[in-house]
Amino acid sequence: MDQVKQYIEANKERFLDELFELLRIPSISAQSEHKPDMQRCAEWLAAALVKAGADRAEVMPTEGNPVVYAEKIIDPKAKTVLVYGHYDVMPVDPREEWRTEPFEPVVKDGRIWGRGADDDKGQLYMHAKAFEAMCATDSLPCNVKFMLEGEEEIGSPSLYGFCAKNKKLLKADIILVSDTSMISMQQPSITCGLRGLAYMEVEVTGPNKDLHSGLFGGAVANPANVLARLVNQLVDETGRITIPGFYDKVRELTPAERKAFNKAPFCMRKYKQALEIGAVEGEEGYTTLERTGVRPSLDVNGIWGGYIGEGTKTVIPSKATAKISMRLVPNQNHKEIAKLFEKHFKAIAPKSVKVVVKSLHGGQPYVAPTDMPAYKAAEKAIKETFGKKPLPFYSGGSIPIISGFESILGIKSLLIGFGLSEDAIHSPNESYGLNQFYKGIDTIPYFYKYFAE
Amino acid sequence: MDQVKQYIEANKERFLDELFELLRIPSISAQSEHKPDMQRCAEWLAAALVKAGADRAEVMPTEGNPVVYAEKIIDPKAKTVLVYGHYDVMPVDPREEWRTEPFEPVVKDGRIWGRGADDDKGQLYMHAKAFEAMCATDSLPCNVKFMLEGEEEIGSPSLYGFCAKNKKLLKADIILVSDTSMISMQQPSITCGLRGLAYMEVEVTGPNKDLHSGLFGGAVANPANVLARLVNQLVDETGRITIPGFYDKVRELTPAERKAFNKAPFCMRKYKQALEIGAVEGEEGYTTLERTGVRPSLDVNGIWGGYIGEGTKTVIPSKATAKISMRLVPNQNHKEIAKLFEKHFKAIAPKSVKVVVKSLHGGQPYVAPTDMPAYKAAEKAIKETFGKKPLPFYSGGSIPIISGFESILGIKSLLIGFGLSEDAIHSPNESYGLNQFYKGIDTIPYFYKYFAE
Repeated sequence: MDQVKQYIEANKERFLDELFELLRIPSISAQSEHKPDMQRCAEWLAAALVKAGADRAEVMPTEGNPVVYAEKIIDPKAKTVLVYGHYDVMPVDPREEWRTEPFEPVVKDGRIWGRGADDDKGQLYMHAKAFEAMCATDSLPCNVKFMLEGEEEIGSPSLYGFCAKNKKLLKADIILVSDTSMISMQQPSITCGLRGLAYMEVEVTGPNKDLHSGLFGGAVANPANVLARLVNQLVDETGRITIPGFYDKVRELTPAERKAFNKAPFCMRKYKQALEIGAVEGEEGYTTLERTGVRPSLDVNGIWGGYIGEGTKTVIPSKATAKISMRLVPNQNHKEIAKLFEKHFKAIAPKSVKVVVKSLHGGQPYVAPTDMPAYKAAEKAIKETFGKKPLPFYSGGSIPIISGFESILGIKSLLIGFGLSEDAIHSPNESYGLNQFYKGIDTIPYFYKYFAE
Repeated sequence: MDQVKQYIEANKERFLDELFELLRIPSISAQSEHKPDMQRCAEWLAAALVKAGADRAEVMPTEGNPVVYAEKIIDPKAKTVLVYGHYDVMPVDPREEWRTEPFEPVVKDGRIWGRGADDDKGQLYMHAKAFEAMCATDSLPCNVKFMLEGEEEIGSPSLYGFCAKNKKLLKADIILVSDTSMISMQQPSITCGLRGLAYMEVEVTGPNKDLHSGLFGGAVANPANVLARLVNQLVDETGRITIPGFYDKVRELTPAERKAFNKAPFCMRKYKQALEIGAVEGEEGYTTLERTGVRPSLDVNGIWGGYIGEGTKTVIPSKATAKISMRLVPNQNHKEIAKLFEKHFKAIAPKSVKVVVKSLHGGQPYVAPTDMPAYKAAEKAIKETFGKKPLPFYSGGSIPIISGFESILGIKSLLIGFGLSEDAIHSPNESYGLNQFYKGIDTIPYFYKYFAE
């Protein structure tokens, strides 16, 4: 391992320069104008993996954005690790809140600033470079495959089919994923739970055109007011989601589990201070850790209708729209929840409006067993580089494809992410600590070592 | 009057060409980038009024957009009519819903299509052309003054000061305004009531940055959800506005007044059909005519927050904003109502968010007496050209400056508008019937005749 360490140390600067090249490609999967950037990004990664030591790397077409597949097979009988990551990134709005150019990364205050710095380009590139270090020093102890997709931020619509078609190619003992966060650099953790997601869009239409709010105000249902009313009805005063059947399959933790769960370090004062909020808000009877870790939630991710420009316009909009997503927990099923949502939303809409409900994407919740060999290997690897045993952690986030891997490929995933909550993923001014990036590259070879043993 | 009629008939085409020139100027007062268009529009109108026969016309600066003042004094001892109109227009969003270019007017199906075709360029230009016809035929029976402002659609902020400064210049017996609608071409009407307006903007801020809705969803107040909740709380299930004190000064009609009021022709089936709505919605216990004519209302005119682009983004927005306006009736005071709104909105906001409430503009409600000479003259003039006596009508709209005219200048206004509800003012595809335009030009000289008698 000393050789690996030395190699990493000697090539640190170059690793960062390469990551910057990757970050400069604006591979936003949600926006169709970036289609060419997706292809370009995939080709860049395939070339980078060959240079890093892969025997072969391919940009494989799908119905959507391509998947980068690469592999190095040292011995068909050895264990195989399948590294999963995603090269697509979130949109950058609100653009004006960025202090630097989102696709012109810079290092400042010991951090890399730019869209994708953490999620997930920074994290996936740690794997490419750890792999390079092991290849270059001839110390790779098992087979490695890479599967890097370009649609994670829109729910991986093509990857399910890709996995189903390429089961043999993707055969592995474990899927290794760095697309999550740790509690802190002082308290490392391994994510063993992810929430699922059901992402909906609702459109409320009132009159067939925008109306003058003086001539019609008070007599005609205003779709923006009605949308506010309907959104408000989705969650009651105690923070419970009101959709009938929504909680039917939610697994309640036992008192002992809840006690253990709440042992993760958490400081309410610091939490509120970091977000600059006067109070938290959520489902009554649960702690903040529980609310994000093991309880479902419902959030408006976007809402718009009527005149949103400068000044005033006295208008009753013809329609108002909201993007609403729900985070799900075991054993909720995102397809069932999407249907329950649609049924309920339509049922509570008044006759004065028409509503259209669309399901934009979804994913199942996931729980990783803490007793599998890969988990144990990761625990040892992290202890080696962080000097402290990692805690199991339930993240509130979702990586919908993870449960898909299990059901389609029959392979468990290990979620060994090096992100931190301050990385502001999905937000303006996303960043990734240089120490996180390099600590990740240092840790990954240990994982291979212990996993292969 | 025969000469006047002949003159109008002979010059019809040119009148329309000139109106088109006026409509091509994108004089949107709400958007600061159109500042130069406001000046250009004012200069165009001043020149047009001189050509029409005014002794003098001036573009008079104000703190905001200029006022066009023009006059023709035939005899200092004769009666004086002050024509008021506004050359500014509403924004054009949603731009994509226009079937023609908003600032490239066209005639189709007997109607003029374009922003301002009715509100208020089409209507004010009828006055310019009726004035021209009377001047050209030497049949103007009284003095005429014009005051055309460029800020009506943003609440006439500068016109109050302009009136206060120019009381002598603006001295008149009546203010003549065409900026309202009639019931229909078959049932003409004169507007004798206008609602007031209090236009607010509220901004709800939660966390100090956009957050990942997975990592934080369920634990942190989402400002878009909170905004929906607060907006919803402003109106109860019976359609009553919940702001404490809101109805204190509302004058309730007597049963006899209500009976008379509801005599105006109204067909619910046609009303719903024209708007393509399944049901109307409003304050319980009142008819649709009452809801827009004599009852106050509260509408969201615009709402936005979070990701409103294509596809999905799993974000808890840092802030969400709404433009909310209230239509007011006698004897509500828009300044008092704005204060009550602000106080109430802040009071109902939870500790988990910060709110900012701004008052964007306002105006007092207005009632025109139906027994004043100008009303009687208008009644006779309309009967002359429409063949039917006009009904008094309470419009739900607001022209905030009208009550200002009375309080500052001590002059009543006569609201003789030739608009129709199908003109879609403030909406995409605004239009104005050629018959409305020409019938207006025909009617106005009769008003002068009977008013001067």
